[in-house]
Amino acid sequence: MATPLPVTITAGAEGPWRITGITAPVGASLLPAARLVVEDGARLARDGAWRLRGITSNLRYTAEAERAALAGVQQGLGRAGATRAALIPIRKSEAWWDMAQDARRDIIEEQSRHIAIGLEYLPAVARRLIHCRDLGEPFDFLTWFEFAPEDEARFDALLGRLRATVEWRYVTREVEVRLARD
Amino acid sequence: MATPLPVTITAGAEGPWRITGITAPVGASLLPAARLVVEDGARLARDGAWRLRGITSNLRYTAEAERAALAGVQQGLGRAGATRAALIPIRKSEAWWDMAQDARRDIIEEQSRHIAIGLEYLPAVARRLIHCRDLGEPFDFLTWFEFAPEDEARFDALLGRLRATVEWRYVTREVEVRLARD
Repeated sequence: MATPLPVTITAGAEGPWRITGITAPVGASLLPAARLVVEDGARLARDGAWRLRGITSNLRYTAEAERAALAGVQQGLGRAGATRAALIPIRKSEAWWDMAQDARRDIIEEQSRHIAIGLEYLPAVARRLIHCRDLGEPFDFLTWFEFAPEDEARFDALLGRLRATVEWRYVTREVEVRLARD
Repeated sequence: MATPLPVTITAGAEGPWRITGITAPVGASLLPAARLVVEDGARLARDGAWRLRGITSNLRYTAEAERAALAGVQQGLGRAGATRAALIPIRKSEAWWDMAQDARRDIIEEQSRHIAIGLEYLPAVARRLIHCRDLGEPFDFLTWFEFAPEDEARFDALLGRLRATVEWRYVTREVEVRLARD
């Protein structure tokens, strides 16, 4: 589970996901595209309007008790009813990365309740975090969410709460790609 | 400082560092070679017996107070008198990476005193940590140490103390490359 898995996300003419909107809450957006595909372990040079790559990795902030709480309720990607998705690429400031581990953890959870807030939206919203800062990519993380159409308003509420946190003051670029599959 | 910097280490016929010995305390060793070069930001396809690459990155375990203590005494690489070096590539087990953040931190510092032990050997031993697990490399970290010839016995003592820790029980491969420059 903690073995790094390369993930490539390509937006273009192909893919099971239809892009329904791209907005940029902070900083520059990404180019418009019709469809999107997420490929695990792939290193394909597939044509596309843009391509983001990263790796799934070990936990960076989550404590054992939090992981156990999450594991008790979360569900995996690819559920039949989860026909809506969101891709949120994020970059954080140099000030964020210059902080030591305990200072970043304090902001993420003790101040911002990021993990606790996310827990409230399980199992409706399934989630996968992809790291890309260390790969020299334009974003630090790509977060992928999947949910049913009837849970879209709840997902919007989750995003709104996270964006109001102290942690989000360190976000220097954020793009929101909304998707649907048939 | 926390901006990821790619680093490439190539062992072969060239480089300012002469390899004086390669041993493998745990697992498979690396091929013998005469010399070694460390290149920052380089993506060269330089010929060599072996090549390891990684990135310097943000702090993963160190707390602010610990960083301040280290920063007060540590010295940089490249000191004129630091004509001895060691490269220690390490891989840890899946059990290690499967642990949540607080469990790994507890083993590294509360149980093993890794940061505190390292502090005792400053400023004699200068150090740089290079991460490579997320790049799909054979090792998880490369640690580079530089010191004066008269501090070599102290460096050996540091290695011995770290290898006796609980943290080291999770090391599944460790190579020790010793080096000198004229």
